[in-house]
Amino acid sequence: MNKVLEALNFRHACKQFDPEKKIPKDKLDEIVECARLSPSSFGMEAWKFLILESDEIKQKIRPACWDQAQITDSSHVIVILSTPALVGKDSEHVKKMFARRGLDADAVNAYLQRYADFHKNEREPYMSEYAWCCKQCYIALANIMSAAAAENIDSCPIEGFDKNALEQTLELDPEKEQVSVVVALGYRAGAQTPRFRRDASEIINYR
Amino acid sequence: MNKVLEALNFRHACKQFDPEKKIPKDKLDEIVECARLSPSSFGMEAWKFLILESDEIKQKIRPACWDQAQITDSSHVIVILSTPALVGKDSEHVKKMFARRGLDADAVNAYLQRYADFHKNEREPYMSEYAWCCKQCYIALANIMSAAAAENIDSCPIEGFDKNALEQTLELDPEKEQVSVVVALGYRAGAQTPRFRRDASEIINYR
Repeated sequence: MNKVLEALNFRHACKQFDPEKKIPKDKLDEIVECARLSPSSFGMEAWKFLILESDEIKQKIRPACWDQAQITDSSHVIVILSTPALVGKDSEHVKKMFARRGLDADAVNAYLQRYADFHKNEREPYMSEYAWCCKQCYIALANIMSAAAAENIDSCPIEGFDKNALEQTLELDPEKEQVSVVVALGYRAGAQTPRFRRDASEIINYR
Repeated sequence: MNKVLEALNFRHACKQFDPEKKIPKDKLDEIVECARLSPSSFGMEAWKFLILESDEIKQKIRPACWDQAQITDSSHVIVILSTPALVGKDSEHVKKMFARRGLDADAVNAYLQRYADFHKNEREPYMSEYAWCCKQCYIALANIMSAAAAENIDSCPIEGFDKNALEQTLELDPEKEQVSVVVALGYRAGAQTPRFRRDASEIINYR
């Protein structure tokens, strides 16, 4: 069977973690590497990953995360940050991300023009730079969860947080980085709630 | 090594597909199943997957996709649709997704209230329902790409399309479903461009 499908068959939204079980460092490193290797639109990688391992910091952010027990019972919490300030069409970061491809100046300028056109025509009418970066962050989120599941490590993705409060607690500068999504990782405790999915016939069509 | 990490080490944005090589049906089915099993916020699964296999439909949408050759050279193109109309707090779909958990009426109502509060406080200030659904679609996008890579199948995620033109070409009703993102799948032809990623020290922090 496809190894990612195997992982997804294991995965569910873990509601109860065993607070005694910690993810070994080598396994965590591989999960984090999956986040780093995730693709992003135009290769912008406009994200950061805050890996929370101390009990203190997890305790501290729990109130901003709807006081959910997964925050403190899990082994590690990864806060995925989006960095919208980096992706403006005239930003140094954007130029650097295109230039690293080893292209000549004309080719880089052609990319920059296409990038500017994309944002004007296909991003701005639909969402902010923050939301656009968040979409990319969700690619990394998925890979973190699947990579964890491939090692029988449980995860719980968390959108249930007070964004402003969480950013303040983590002492982030929202001009530079904003919370996109949170994911708790660890090992399940006891029986878990069943998983439900819509039937393929409702959501999949071939043409 | 972690199987998802292995897959991500294989994966890159494939710029040139071999138009002669088609993905076997059993492998495609497993990739599509990975999309279906993807998690989504509050378990809403507000997505659809249009799997384009005929040369005719791929030819037809290519102009709306910046005339990119990957659309027609790839084996299959999956158009991931978001269905924002389903996720309104009073929609039947939302009630159904909570009710399927087998909870009593009070528990369902508590979920509905939490869901309504979430949208009011944490979604509306930052993005539209469409953008919120798109984020979830990117989880499925990631799993499609990783599942493909686990079978040495190449992929190219595509944000470069004219959303309105693509929806018209596919004869979608934007009131019901809107294009979120496109991904081409197939087999690479010849040497590929190198992959670049930011250094871990730039994007990963431990606390």
